[in-house]
Amino acid sequence: MEDSMVFAVIGAGNTGQAMAGYLKFKGFTVKLYDRSEWRFKYLKKNPMKLSDEIESSQKIDLMTTDLEKAVEGANFVIVSTTTTAHAEIAKRLSEILTNDQIVLLHPGRTGGTLIFKKVFKENRPDLKITIGEFESSIFTTRTSISGTTVHYYGIKAGVHFAAIPAGNTRKIFQILKGIFPQIETAQNVLYTSLSNYGSILHPAPTLFNIGRIENGLSYAHYVEGITPSIANFLEKLDSERVTLGKYFKLRLKPLTVWLSDTYGSNGDNLYELLQNTKAYHKILGPNTLQHRYIVEDTLNGLVPFVHLARKCGIGLPITESLTNLIGHLLGIDVISLGRDLNDMGIANMDVQQIIDYVSNGDL
Amino acid sequence: MEDSMVFAVIGAGNTGQAMAGYLKFKGFTVKLYDRSEWRFKYLKKNPMKLSDEIESSQKIDLMTTDLEKAVEGANFVIVSTTTTAHAEIAKRLSEILTNDQIVLLHPGRTGGTLIFKKVFKENRPDLKITIGEFESSIFTTRTSISGTTVHYYGIKAGVHFAAIPAGNTRKIFQILKGIFPQIETAQNVLYTSLSNYGSILHPAPTLFNIGRIENGLSYAHYVEGITPSIANFLEKLDSERVTLGKYFKLRLKPLTVWLSDTYGSNGDNLYELLQNTKAYHKILGPNTLQHRYIVEDTLNGLVPFVHLARKCGIGLPITESLTNLIGHLLGIDVISLGRDLNDMGIANMDVQQIIDYVSNGDL
Repeated sequence: MEDSMVFAVIGAGNTGQAMAGYLKFKGFTVKLYDRSEWRFKYLKKNPMKLSDEIESSQKIDLMTTDLEKAVEGANFVIVSTTTTAHAEIAKRLSEILTNDQIVLLHPGRTGGTLIFKKVFKENRPDLKITIGEFESSIFTTRTSISGTTVHYYGIKAGVHFAAIPAGNTRKIFQILKGIFPQIETAQNVLYTSLSNYGSILHPAPTLFNIGRIENGLSYAHYVEGITPSIANFLEKLDSERVTLGKYFKLRLKPLTVWLSDTYGSNGDNLYELLQNTKAYHKILGPNTLQHRYIVEDTLNGLVPFVHLARKCGIGLPITESLTNLIGHLLGIDVISLGRDLNDMGIANMDVQQIIDYVSNGDL
Repeated sequence: MEDSMVFAVIGAGNTGQAMAGYLKFKGFTVKLYDRSEWRFKYLKKNPMKLSDEIESSQKIDLMTTDLEKAVEGANFVIVSTTTTAHAEIAKRLSEILTNDQIVLLHPGRTGGTLIFKKVFKENRPDLKITIGEFESSIFTTRTSISGTTVHYYGIKAGVHFAAIPAGNTRKIFQILKGIFPQIETAQNVLYTSLSNYGSILHPAPTLFNIGRIENGLSYAHYVEGITPSIANFLEKLDSERVTLGKYFKLRLKPLTVWLSDTYGSNGDNLYELLQNTKAYHKILGPNTLQHRYIVEDTLNGLVPFVHLARKCGIGLPITESLTNLIGHLLGIDVISLGRDLNDMGIANMDVQQIIDYVSNGDL
């Protein structure tokens, strides 16, 4: 089956292009969708240049703004859009997917799979489909400004993957492991959803660098933007996430352990680990507050953390203070605009029912 | 009386030196105290150079690390130390003050006078003394690194002053107005304490600039460090302060109005006003997180705001989120370490009793 597999990659931003290029490099048929034609302006005339951790040149089989054409006949539909588009993409996919297709969110951020599951159930109750999510993007990547080159600054080791129902995780993993030798299975999609390291690494450091961001000054997000005090703060923030996981019977990896496992970074604390993570060295900080590092990773990371914690009857004081402050800075009510338990279809369940739901795919 | 008046200035940092130089320039006898001899290293050998808004050269009459010598025979004792030292200074002063002396906190930050009042009452119940406070430093000032020159970047207009009991405000004002024509009387010390503009202008912008602060990058605090988004946030933060004032029957000036009144700045919003405040142009941001802009102005500004709001039965969501986040970043429990109602001697009073207390100096 593997060699003839067809992949639809939804979204042609940094992550989507990196995924498309990688799959093509691995020899599969790849169809790349984006809602904006300009994304393909360069790639329709020239092959995609793959650089850094992969050195190659590839031609994507189809680049289209027609979602149906992209998805038709694909074995896997890999969603690599901004996660704020998940609900809308789920709705549009629900109208065109067939039972034999598999949807993978790359990444899902917190609750992505649960949102797809809910939307599919509401719009296509007949559809029997497995949905899975990666805990983060497999690639630390940026596309060059001109659109010519995909830089693979890092290909992560040990990225977790889980499906709903959880029983299907291993089945999909058997297919995927030949393509992505770096992935591992997770207990369930709560594990991958709570392993949203972007929500730890992105919003707070952006907040603590607003001054220079709005002064138009460029800086390296991980090595300059995350200073010793900020790194120390992030360790505390992260420990709230790990605590939340315990209420869902999950042993989540602290960010420090994850960095060491994923990038082979060395260091006694988060600051040192980040300084020693080569893949991060060239990643620049946001140049505006309207950036996924603070908008998306708050709405689809910190906010669902807060909602899930409330379900467990616990407070996350650092996460909540941070989330509230970001909301006041962005001038939006992030708690009500972000992903909540209703979006994920789990508002009426108790904690044990949520655990059962992600295991069985139904109550 | 005026010409022969003697002033003791306590604290020889930026504000204390500016006060000492100004009073000397006005022709009074000035004794300057600091706990650290190195503060006087230059000034004991050379006259103080006054620059910018005042151009002069003055010799301070006495510079000493002996508090008793500084205070002895002074008509006014002007406390210009960091306000985190208030309780200790109050205790030491309580042992040496005499009934005819007047203590002025320059500035008091939030609750300064109330703290002095409480400490004096506990340590010297016999002492009948008037204590007053300025809502902010009269001077926007910095001493040059070499210690040679006091730069008066701005001399503020309309700085409010109040004493406890409030009935004494006007009496002291009659003496002071000839020296500081720019001051105005306020209703009571709650007004001056809640007009703590530093607590709005300093901690949050410092928080939002931690990245470059810890990268060792210099920036102008008010014109670069306070960007449009940050200024917009500060306006919301400030509106909580103004709301708090209403519960104490005070009509506080919004920060925007205060800037316009104090510096004659123009602009449609806080960002524009700050950009157009010349006195602020050369004021640099902190070069460390261990800086009064974030430590002192949180502990002695934002924290007492939170405690006073709780007394009123209201929440200040922006102030509280900000305060909590700063605490987590500094790694200290700011809410319990900062000024609370017990420190101010008003913990057991209700709101009306607090208003009566600041009016009458007793319940």
